[in-house]
Formats: sequence, structure tokens, C-alpha cells
Amino acid sequence: MSATSSSPLSPVTGAAGPAAAEAPLEWHERLALRAQGGPSELSAILALAAAGGDLVDFSGGFPDTTLYDTDLLGEIAAKQIGTRPEVALQYASNWGLPSLREALRADIARNQGHVPGEDELMVTSGGVDALTLACKAMLDDGDAVLVEAPSYLGAFNVIRSHGGEPVSMRNDEHGLVPASVREAAEAARAAGRTPKFVYVIPDFQNPSGLLLAEDRRRELVDLCRELGLLLLEDVAYRDLAFDGSYLRSIYEIGPDVTVQTGTFSKTFTPGTRMGWACGPATVIRAMAEAKTNTDQCAGALGQCILEALITEGHYAASLPRIREAYAARASALVGAFEDRLDGLATWTVPEGGFFTWLDVPGVDTKELAGVGIENGVAFVPGSPFFADGRASAQLRMSFSRTPAERMAEGVDRLARSIERLRG
Amino acid sequence: MSATSSSPLSPVTGAAGPAAAEAPLEWHERLALRAQGGPSELSAILALAAAGGDLVDFSGGFPDTTLYDTDLLGEIAAKQIGTRPEVALQYASNWGLPSLREALRADIARNQGHVPGEDELMVTSGGVDALTLACKAMLDDGDAVLVEAPSYLGAFNVIRSHGGEPVSMRNDEHGLVPASVREAAEAARAAGRTPKFVYVIPDFQNPSGLLLAEDRRRELVDLCRELGLLLLEDVAYRDLAFDGSYLRSIYEIGPDVTVQTGTFSKTFTPGTRMGWACGPATVIRAMAEAKTNTDQCAGALGQCILEALITEGHYAASLPRIREAYAARASALVGAFEDRLDGLATWTVPEGGFFTWLDVPGVDTKELAGVGIENGVAFVPGSPFFADGRASAQLRMSFSRTPAERMAEGVDRLARSIERLRG
Repeated sequence: MSATSSSPLSPVTGAAGPAAAEAPLEWHERLALRAQGGPSELSAILALAAAGGDLVDFSGGFPDTTLYDTDLLGEIAAKQIGTRPEVALQYASNWGLPSLREALRADIARNQGHVPGEDELMVTSGGVDALTLACKAMLDDGDAVLVEAPSYLGAFNVIRSHGGEPVSMRNDEHGLVPASVREAAEAARAAGRTPKFVYVIPDFQNPSGLLLAEDRRRELVDLCRELGLLLLEDVAYRDLAFDGSYLRSIYEIGPDVTVQTGTFSKTFTPGTRMGWACGPATVIRAMAEAKTNTDQCAGALGQCILEALITEGHYAASLPRIREAYAARASALVGAFEDRLDGLATWTVPEGGFFTWLDVPGVDTKELAGVGIENGVAFVPGSPFFADGRASAQLRMSFSRTPAERMAEGVDRLARSIERLRG
Repeated sequence: MSATSSSPLSPVTGAAGPAAAEAPLEWHERLALRAQGGPSELSAILALAAAGGDLVDFSGGFPDTTLYDTDLLGEIAAKQIGTRPEVALQYASNWGLPSLREALRADIARNQGHVPGEDELMVTSGGVDALTLACKAMLDDGDAVLVEAPSYLGAFNVIRSHGGEPVSMRNDEHGLVPASVREAAEAARAAGRTPKFVYVIPDFQNPSGLLLAEDRRRELVDLCRELGLLLLEDVAYRDLAFDGSYLRSIYEIGPDVTVQTGTFSKTFTPGTRMGWACGPATVIRAMAEAKTNTDQCAGALGQCILEALITEGHYAASLPRIREAYAARASALVGAFEDRLDGLATWTVPEGGFFTWLDVPGVDTKELAGVGIENGVAFVPGSPFFADGRASAQLRMSFSRTPAERMAEGVDRLARSIERLRG
């Protein structure tokens, strides 16, 4: 189906008038150009994870719902509905409930040395929504966003769907190379694009699992200040260091040039779509305004539940148990790598978060993913994590939802898949 | 602040280098052009409603949370969390939970003669999200959307934030004039814009309160089929006819050319952000794909609660009580009009929904709104409900959240405000 076919005002069948109604209208060519492609790689991954069966699934970045205290959550939900329905069951402000915003500011103070002011924090409907709002606030058609290579592939889709173009910076075995911000900004300008912000995931990055060292964070802030570029710091996995430690956040180092976005989808639940964004008031105000024409407001019931969890101390109290569970899985997975992948691949050893990133020299991991499914193991090939779609001998494995006792079997299936491809 | 000032790569202070960091960066001029305006009129309305005090508030289209059965809702929420946390507390598919989609298809069959197929319905995060997804699926930069005059002002913001331009059709005292679709489409083309879809609210329209007659619905479908235009039918108030009746939906009349979007924010609660979209599979598929890069998925907890409400029969069973309550308020408000506004204004007599639309000849209702606030009464002036921002002697009053015993006082304040302006 061509994207430049007949005018949307002429029926596809040619003749105008009621007779045309006999042939059904063809909608594909009437879609936005951006919508005429196939489903994204992210959709394909979500579909994989839904396939189920005997698959050992390392694909999606899903939290493990068995880690939640469902009795407590049920009790809190019922109490919020019963005691303040005029808040929990009503529209919320586009900024979020004032009481939750207060609780979130206090929660930021739990692990960061800079606390946003009242007009510097808003509630979002999860992390992807925060990115959407940042794009709506910052991007004109054709602008560039500088992204890590590799980075969260969902971010590329959000950026593109708002007329922006993700332009790759450079990562090494320690994560983002700060100096590459300047190179990427210059490359963007040379291509006629205005770089508007830098998107970075410093803590247990998706997909690499790496923690960006503090000196690189400082260098990044200095460079962005010099270049007049906003930093968008995604701290989705910040609360999930296995040892409970925190590095200084980029927001803490450079609150004047940073919008920090966070989500409770990894540590609490994705089921209520809760996140936040904090940063310079001018940008947050524009993001809050954009929310009125995106989904109007985050759900008030989820906001009330989250507020109770935070202010009553349950959220912070739940973290050690959750960290311990993910640490045990990471350890089981890395143990299985050591037993079975030696000589076949190398991997990052995660100190937090959900992911490890493997290098399988000489193997096209897109091809490997197909063989893997045949062998009963799912992971995400590396290529879609690069904005330029480069071929990649790397792959991402998520250990967050895989039972520890399935790790060895899953890794053995992966090893056999690699061996089969290598002949 | 000029929108075309210095390049985002040069610090505003001029000199590059670390010294520039001493002067804080100015973010306003780095925002997207669309974000450099002030807050929208919708934000201003939401702020008004939050003001409280002794105000008699007819401004926002908010449901009355005292109409909910909070014991039942709390019980259902706790049960969903307790019995299926692996669904309620996890990411959902971008299409929505299969079980809720099944329930929604059955609920559509409750009052419509055409039921969408499995790949023709998706769950959205409320009504504004559905509009967002339709825009992402349909609009290229500069495309036109044909809108009623007046229509829901939030829709204009959504359309504009996706690069589209709302182009006014023509409404008369019975609602949208179908023939004006052709005129507006031609006007859009003459202005170099491709009309992509027609946005219409046929049931108890926002803001007019009018119900579009069935012959106009049929004419609209025939015309859009002929012109190759998609109809976006917003049925936010469809379940709220005071007598429980339903006209044939536009979707039912023309499922081949219609995407229907609905929300549970008016009849159930806005607190969980729940809505749906159904229509031709090609368009719904593109909207579902767009959801992955908007907010990823609708909240699973809200989906589970809504599913239980629908499948256990509570949702349908709650409607008579809710209709009765809003009917009583509409009746009290219209009674107050008859007592106090005769000779000052005319009004629509709503048979459902939340709104009545007043005509106050010779009065600028923007000015009137200011006088009204001074006198302790809030409503929304007519002008922002017109995409072309034309001056308007009309205004919208919402009776959905105003206690019946406050109606006379509110209307008296409105009357005094009109009298003051007329001298």
C-alpha cells in the first residue's frame, strides 16, 4: 500500500457518490504516515512474552507480581475508596494530587540531596507517559534527541511518534561516554536537526544493566550546561541496587539542567500507571500542560494507593525484600552463564535492576532469537536497542520474572541455540 | 520571550564554556513552539473548579462521586488484587486485557446493534487518550479534523498538539448540520489541509447538551462514506439519557466508516482512566500501536475492576440510579432558569448528560464569566468551544455536581451578573 496514493477525499474505488459505499473504504492509506508501518519491535516482544507455553522467558522488563503484599494493597485500595471517594474516584489535577506530590517530594529526599520545589514536580501515568510529555514539551518536528547506544527501545518510538529523531551517542563497557554528547550534538546539527535533550538511564540501564559512575554523571551535567541541553534522567531502576546503595543522581548534581523521570512500575506495580517528573519549573509546567491533551490526568485511585504506601512507610519498607529477590535471580542467572556460556558469550554482571547484556561474537542475535524460540528460550536481540538499527551481536536478558530454578535450563537452551548457529 | 531566539546549542548568556553555567539556563525558549504559549483554557477551567469557597460551580464536566457504591467498589478492588494479582498488578497488553475487551464487546451489545469483532476494539486510558490515539494514528502535520461548532474544547487541544488543525463545521439548534461536513472539507482543502476525520459527539453533546437526531446520523454516515472520511463518534454521555433510551449510534449505522470512543469517566469513575475505542480493524490496530508509545497500556487494576463491574452486572444496574440523580439536577436547574432568566437568556433543555447551553444575547460571556466569579457563580464562556475562537454570547453550564438546592442561588447570581453587565 503506497503512502502517497489517492487523496483521502476521493473514494479509493474512483467514482464519487453513494455507489462508492458498496466497496468498503480502505483505511490503511488514510492513516498518518508514521502509522503505516508494521507493529513496532516492542509490540513483537510483548507478543512473545504472552506466548507462554514451556518457554523460558527472558524477554520483557516485567516485575514479579508474587513479590507484592496483596493483602496490604487490597486493604489500602478499599480504604482509599471508602474514606475519600471524592478524591480517589474523581478527576485529578493534570499535575497530580497535591498530597501525592508532597509525598513524592519527601520520597525523593529519601535518597537524593536535592528536593524539587512545589512547582517542580508532577505525577505522570508511568515512565512512558513522562517521556511522552517531555517530547510534547520540547520537540518541534525534526528536532533531535541524543540517546545512548544501546538504550531503551521504547523511548525511540516515543521520540519518533512526536516528530523527533533519536541520534546515537556512544557507550563503552562502563556505560555512556560523556564526551560523545558533544559529538552527537554536532552530528545532529550537521544533519539539520536541533538537539533538544539527552536521554539517559544512569542506574542499571536498560538494556545493559550498567551503573553509570559518578564522575561521568558530573561530566555529563557540565557538558549539557555548556551546550544548553536538557538532560532527561530516567531513574526507573534507581531503587533496585541489590545492596540498597545509591549513587548521586544526575538531577541532584545538576537540577538546573535535568528533568528526572521515575516510575513505580518496577518496584510497586505497573497496574496503576504511576510515575513522576521533576525538574526546572518551566519544563515541568509545559509537561503538565501537555498532560491535559494526552490523558488529562493520572488515575486518582492509583495516586491515592501510592500516596498511602509512601506516607505509611510501606513502600520504603518493601524495597529490601524486593531487592533480595531480584538479586537472587541475577545471581542464579550469572551462575548459569558461568557454567554454560564460557567461550560462547560474555555478559555484564548486574548490581541492580532487571537486565544483563550479552555479547555473542560473530552471531546475528536477530537470527539467534528465532532459533531460541524454537529451542524454548526468549530474549530480545540487540539491534532494536540502537536508534540507528545497527546489526548487533548483543542481546538483552531480563531476569526479573524468571524463577531461579529455571535459569539453568533457559541458559542451556540459549547455549544450544548459539552452538547450532555456529555449526 | 521570542520563539525564534538563539540556537538551543548556545547558552542564552552568549559566551560558551563553563562560565556560562553561572547564569541559569532559560528553558522557555528551548521548549517546543506549541509549548511556549500560556496554559490552555481547559487548565483555567480546572483551576476555577478547584477554587472552592462559596462558589456555585457549574464549570467542569465532573461526575458526582457521591453516586458511587463505595462499599462495592472497595470490595471488588480488594478481591481483584487478592485473586488475580498476576493480572491486576502487571503490565497489560497495549490492546487491553482480553477478558475486559470481551466484556466491553458484550456491553456494547447491550445498547447497539453492531458489535465490534475481536480485532476491532481496544481499551484506552479514558476518552482524551482515545482521541490522542486517533490523532497519532490518523494525522500528519497540518492535516485537518472537522469539528462541531461548538464542540468539546479539550479535543481542539489534543488535535493541535498532534500537528492537526480543527476546522469548524456548522451546528444549528438541533446540533450538527450534516451538509456542513462537505463545506468544511472543502474549506480545509482550500486552505491546503487534508481533512482526515470528523469529530462528533451525538449524545447530549458537550457543550450544547443536544441529542443528534437519527436522520442526521444517517446523513452523516452517507456523506462521510462518499467523501472517504472517518467519523470519530465520542459517546461519553450515551448511557446518560434521563429516560434510559438510546438512539442508534453512528457506529451502528456506519461501522465501516466510524471509530467510536467511549469513556467510563462519566458513569463509573474518572479515577481509573478507563475508556475504549472500536472501529475498522486497520484504524484500531494503528491506535493500539500508538498506545505503546503514549502510555504503554491502560492500568490493569482499573481494567480488572471495570471488568468485574460489567460482567457481574453492577455497571448496568447502577445506571438507572445515576440517570435519576442527574435528571433531578437538570430539572432543578431548568426550573431555576424559568424562574429567573426569562428575558435574560435562552437555554437548551437537556434530556441527558451533564450540560445545558445558554444564549445571552448582546453579552460577551468571557466578560460575564469574570463578573460571575465576583458574584460567586462559575460557568464556562462559549468562545473556547469554537475551534476558531469566535466571540460568543453563549455559555456552558454543567449541572452534574451541583446540589439541587444550590441551583436557584447559582442562577440568581448568574442573573444578577447579566443584569450588571447590561446596566
